[in-house]
Amino acid sequence: MNVDAERLRTDIERTAEFGEVESDEGRGRTVLTGTEANREAREYLVSRLEDAGLDVRIDAVGNVAGRWTPESADPDADPVAAGSHLDSVPEGGIFDGPLGVYAALEAVRAMRDAGVEPTRPVEVVSFTEEEGQRFASGLLGSSVAAGERSVEDALALEADDGTALETALTDIGFRGEGRLDASDWDAWLELHVEQSERLMDAGVPVGVVTAITGITHCEVTIRGEADHAGATPMGDRTDALAAASEFVLDVERAANEVVAEESDTAVGTVGSLDVRPNATNVVPGEVTAGVDVRDVDRDVMTELVRRARRSLARLERERGVETEFRRPFDLEPTPMSDRVRSAAHDAGEQAGIETLDLHSGAAHDTMHVAEVTDAGLLFAPSRDGISHNPKEWTDWDDCATATRVLAGALADLGGA
Amino acid sequence: MNVDAERLRTDIERTAEFGEVESDEGRGRTVLTGTEANREAREYLVSRLEDAGLDVRIDAVGNVAGRWTPESADPDADPVAAGSHLDSVPEGGIFDGPLGVYAALEAVRAMRDAGVEPTRPVEVVSFTEEEGQRFASGLLGSSVAAGERSVEDALALEADDGTALETALTDIGFRGEGRLDASDWDAWLELHVEQSERLMDAGVPVGVVTAITGITHCEVTIRGEADHAGATPMGDRTDALAAASEFVLDVERAANEVVAEESDTAVGTVGSLDVRPNATNVVPGEVTAGVDVRDVDRDVMTELVRRARRSLARLERERGVETEFRRPFDLEPTPMSDRVRSAAHDAGEQAGIETLDLHSGAAHDTMHVAEVTDAGLLFAPSRDGISHNPKEWTDWDDCATATRVLAGALADLGGA
Repeated sequence: MNVDAERLRTDIERTAEFGEVESDEGRGRTVLTGTEANREAREYLVSRLEDAGLDVRIDAVGNVAGRWTPESADPDADPVAAGSHLDSVPEGGIFDGPLGVYAALEAVRAMRDAGVEPTRPVEVVSFTEEEGQRFASGLLGSSVAAGERSVEDALALEADDGTALETALTDIGFRGEGRLDASDWDAWLELHVEQSERLMDAGVPVGVVTAITGITHCEVTIRGEADHAGATPMGDRTDALAAASEFVLDVERAANEVVAEESDTAVGTVGSLDVRPNATNVVPGEVTAGVDVRDVDRDVMTELVRRARRSLARLERERGVETEFRRPFDLEPTPMSDRVRSAAHDAGEQAGIETLDLHSGAAHDTMHVAEVTDAGLLFAPSRDGISHNPKEWTDWDDCATATRVLAGALADLGGA
Repeated sequence: MNVDAERLRTDIERTAEFGEVESDEGRGRTVLTGTEANREAREYLVSRLEDAGLDVRIDAVGNVAGRWTPESADPDADPVAAGSHLDSVPEGGIFDGPLGVYAALEAVRAMRDAGVEPTRPVEVVSFTEEEGQRFASGLLGSSVAAGERSVEDALALEADDGTALETALTDIGFRGEGRLDASDWDAWLELHVEQSERLMDAGVPVGVVTAITGITHCEVTIRGEADHAGATPMGDRTDALAAASEFVLDVERAANEVVAEESDTAVGTVGSLDVRPNATNVVPGEVTAGVDVRDVDRDVMTELVRRARRSLARLERERGVETEFRRPFDLEPTPMSDRVRSAAHDAGEQAGIETLDLHSGAAHDTMHVAEVTDAGLLFAPSRDGISHNPKEWTDWDDCATATRVLAGALADLGGA
């Protein structure tokens, strides 16, 4: 089965115009939920779904679904679904999200053009606010579709400016009715850009995700004593930043050791650090740090968190600081469905396209969908691994190649 | 010679009411240059100087001087001078500054009461904006009195709200005429709170400063690569915060080693650290750090700065970061005058008050004055070494004891 690479490219490039950001380094866009750019991107999708003859439905939280029910299909059978999201981070790239939405649509068009006859309907989906830049922390639409968050709770979410999600969606004409229910789907498959360099390094055009890592976020506070940097001798200090620096390096060292010895998918990052009072001439009195720990193996995550806490205990003993540890966010690793992964590998094999098993260190809507149905995730190569940036790039040929695998897998899962 | 401890306490406590800050932890005040609280503190000082029969003069930048010319003195002889400042940091303490001003006044009153007959006039001085909280980076009035900054440049300094120093001083009635010239003084002596714990630890009530440390401020930038904390394997990272953490610990280690081996007065501090983008789920791409290096020995300061730079060079090699190093602020160490120090020690001995030689790690107006005349600095004990905080405290007995040494030294230097 072939896909129309130009048709796919046109849809992605057209979508790239909404919320376009000037950049010398590439093509950027800013598409936050409920903005004018978001309305334009959504309206273009609806028109393209309708052009392709799909039945379009908007749910109460703005999730968009277009259903293709060919004559070969039992209209009452659970559909297979594919898609991604249209929103972006501020000054994000043009592939992160739109590639998965329009690859799903192109897969449907390709199946129809090729006379493929699935026995199940096929649904093309765009979830609301995957990036979590305005109303929630991310994966908003899929959390509702998977029943993890109620429609009511979602609609009541407020942006920093006090606007409720319901108002924002109503304003752009995308506050629909009902709830897109992912548990109705027989299977789900998302195509996304990889956001790292493993496919490029391996020279393989399509990745088949084995598991999405779990994610733990920890908030750490280290309290020492703010003192005059000139009048306080070295021996009389309880420097919160020096202690925090040891903590940062302990987290890094623990992750490096775990990668070397147990699980090469593990990562541990101190991404944020705030120092008080943060003046050159004052010994730091308090530091707060944000820690991100991920792996496909729950036990490895537990080990990394344990080592971070052990570092804090050591710093209390050795440096006399007080520490606090909170773990406000914790998601289990999400293995992908064997059935969906097999369908993807088979589709690659049939099309003569090499595929590579790899994990996802980034969260995706597929995490939520996987809670309620068989779900899979494909990756297309990211140049230099860069995303969330106008420099984000995936070659058009690679977009089409991954879409061929997606189309083949959907045809298989759809019973063609 | 005795001093009137109650009279001194009354002046400091009365001054503490201007800009008083509510605090459960002690007595705080906020007295920024040109504010209502500053006007009140200044007017009270002028009234107290006049009550004591001193001739009061306000110079163009608001420095206040009250001159006592007893019958024993040659009115044309270069005076001996003493004083400090009345301004504070936001929510600062009640002793930092006012102790030195009112101790100088009390010394004059005590000399007069005791019938001491100096052959030189004695001048009581309050410098404008020592703390540098509104118009400059600190030591403003003394920089003008020492001729390091012109009256014109000083008056043109602007606060963040655009108010010029000249306007602010005019508004509170303290834009006087001429320039208080520290080079006219035969000698200068300032009493200040220690701001560290050495006197308390030693159980000695008065410190005689040997030298004020030099101060270097360095601005360091460390650039790595901002990456997705989930999608970027540990081995593919250039984490600017992990590199900066090594730098913080290198600066601390270098200072500790120098203290152990060469100069126990040396300090090295990374007081500020700013991380970009500073999000828990993003590998830090850039860190800027503010470094403070001080010692009484210029060579030791040079060595500490050299080791900080060597740390950056190592991080470039070992971690692949790019670094920048700037040194926007650099002051030489300032030795105190042997003659003035001897006068202080002798005064202590005559009064049966123990004195201790120590250095000052904090900057003081005396640094500027020492450029143009023989200058000295006395310390009174600070409870727990705390300053710039409502918890700042010096026992009233200690205030009086240090004032007795100040008075004795001034009498000696004044040729009595």
